[in-house]
Amino acid sequence: MSRESALVESLRALAGSPSARGLLDDAAIFTVGGATLVLTHDMLVEGVHYLPSDPPEDVAWKLLAVNLSDLAAKGARPVGVLLGYSLGAEQWDRAFVAGLGAALGAFGVALLGGDTVAVPQGSARVLGMTAIGEAAGAVPSRGGARAGDQLWVSGAIGDAGAGLRVLKGEIEGAHEALVERYRLPRPRLEAGATLAPVVSAMMDVSDGLLIDAARIAAASGVRLHIELDAVPLSEAYLACLGVSREARLAAASAGDDYELLFTAPPGRAGEILALSESLGLPLSRVGAAEPGEGLRLSERGEAVALPARLGWEHR
Amino acid sequence: MSRESALVESLRALAGSPSARGLLDDAAIFTVGGATLVLTHDMLVEGVHYLPSDPPEDVAWKLLAVNLSDLAAKGARPVGVLLGYSLGAEQWDRAFVAGLGAALGAFGVALLGGDTVAVPQGSARVLGMTAIGEAAGAVPSRGGARAGDQLWVSGAIGDAGAGLRVLKGEIEGAHEALVERYRLPRPRLEAGATLAPVVSAMMDVSDGLLIDAARIAAASGVRLHIELDAVPLSEAYLACLGVSREARLAAASAGDDYELLFTAPPGRAGEILALSESLGLPLSRVGAAEPGEGLRLSERGEAVALPARLGWEHR
Repeated sequence: MSRESALVESLRALAGSPSARGLLDDAAIFTVGGATLVLTHDMLVEGVHYLPSDPPEDVAWKLLAVNLSDLAAKGARPVGVLLGYSLGAEQWDRAFVAGLGAALGAFGVALLGGDTVAVPQGSARVLGMTAIGEAAGAVPSRGGARAGDQLWVSGAIGDAGAGLRVLKGEIEGAHEALVERYRLPRPRLEAGATLAPVVSAMMDVSDGLLIDAARIAAASGVRLHIELDAVPLSEAYLACLGVSREARLAAASAGDDYELLFTAPPGRAGEILALSESLGLPLSRVGAAEPGEGLRLSERGEAVALPARLGWEHR
Repeated sequence: MSRESALVESLRALAGSPSARGLLDDAAIFTVGGATLVLTHDMLVEGVHYLPSDPPEDVAWKLLAVNLSDLAAKGARPVGVLLGYSLGAEQWDRAFVAGLGAALGAFGVALLGGDTVAVPQGSARVLGMTAIGEAAGAVPSRGGARAGDQLWVSGAIGDAGAGLRVLKGEIEGAHEALVERYRLPRPRLEAGATLAPVVSAMMDVSDGLLIDAARIAAASGVRLHIELDAVPLSEAYLACLGVSREARLAAASAGDDYELLFTAPPGRAGEILALSESLGLPLSRVGAAEPGEGLRLSERGEAVALPARLGWEHR
């Protein structure tokens, strides 16, 4: 177990409340006066979750989007956010606030409060946000997948990770579509709310399709079989990185996708495809749950070894 | 206007929702399903809000206590918290989690979730916490003081600031009682809940009695007259720093007290003194609201000039 995992284990031991779902989930569920609230807190650290060269407006968008993505995975409608802000260079701060205003407006979310702090010279900025959402009905967890369920993912996987490699100079060329997917993730709020009553388990893909699927498997007590050739890749990704097994594995362990990963009984497949049509968002079947634990990969029916790295851990 | 104040001004412009109370308050008020929720987010930065040499258990206590203190000022009962944690040295992390567990237990508060992140080597730790409380009835704001109201404060003022000076080596000797008041603040939860229906305005003293009083004055559109000789000082403080005007001004601008500062009509004075008795907590009348703006100081009826520094700004 990594040191970080050990720490999260020890925090989990503190979280006895059923609202915390044992900290196995992305969000806390909280019932008050007949309403179901969903609360999530996500942080972005300069040099870890975003690049110092990223435009501040985009960092603001991303801070909001990654938090709303957790609400989307719970089928919750966002109500408001609290901001934890580390002050930095004046121009950066100003651009961040302008970008945050635009992002809040785009999602119709209210800034309710927060805190603004100074950090010592030379320290990385740490930005925090708490998002509050309200769920209309069922709130999916990571732990509901059953053997026999199908595994689905929204949108395309790997674009954001490729965009990060472009920005780091590991891939040549501008590849604006991929960079945009890294800097400006789109939380799948409408899809999450629509899918919530249909799925057996759901989470958002933030750390990598494989590592996040392994989390659903662990929480649900099943093994997830992922068909690598079924993982949806965008045209921009294919044009940049091709269709090799290596390219598919890179996409599936890249992270920052902020797509929805979910399971549902096979009998709901028709309904899910109809929802995909009405949402205008691809929903692709990428595998299935079976008895066992962990992950199993295949490509065109042939077994594929799990890569050493499944995704990001506690960035 | 300082740069930080300018930034907060621009954030305030984003906070159009009435729940945010224009970000003039310590907490957001949020009504859902007939319940009134109070949400607050406070951060502690290593080297800014706590000393790198402070015991990690005490930092955990302080992170919880400063957030609960905001709930206390709203008369709210704490329900749960979300933690935003920056990983650091292993032993420190372990001690922090142990201390957090003890603190959560002491206040009967649930850890509901949060996020754990890595920060680049050499960066200051930034710890964030969101606290969720539920208010039983009236939720006091900073803006309700009226000319003629009396100004009150709980407990003793200045101990924590003197404790910080001890830890920095600016005051000789161990002075454990003062250091404990700096490291282990006691949020006035019971007093806050009891006082909420009685006060006209309330907030907690985190940045300094004078600067926080100036915030009540600004939000309420009144001037606050503070009688320096009425500011309650502890025996430990008096033994360490004496009763000079300088010592009184230092106490009133030191910060980290986490006492309650509130106003109430003179007709409620008897009730407040009776509450003080039943709570076993000193509640001292330290001044009054009058027409005008800003602060006015006096000592034994004689005008005293405002010090250049009223307290901490956006630490």
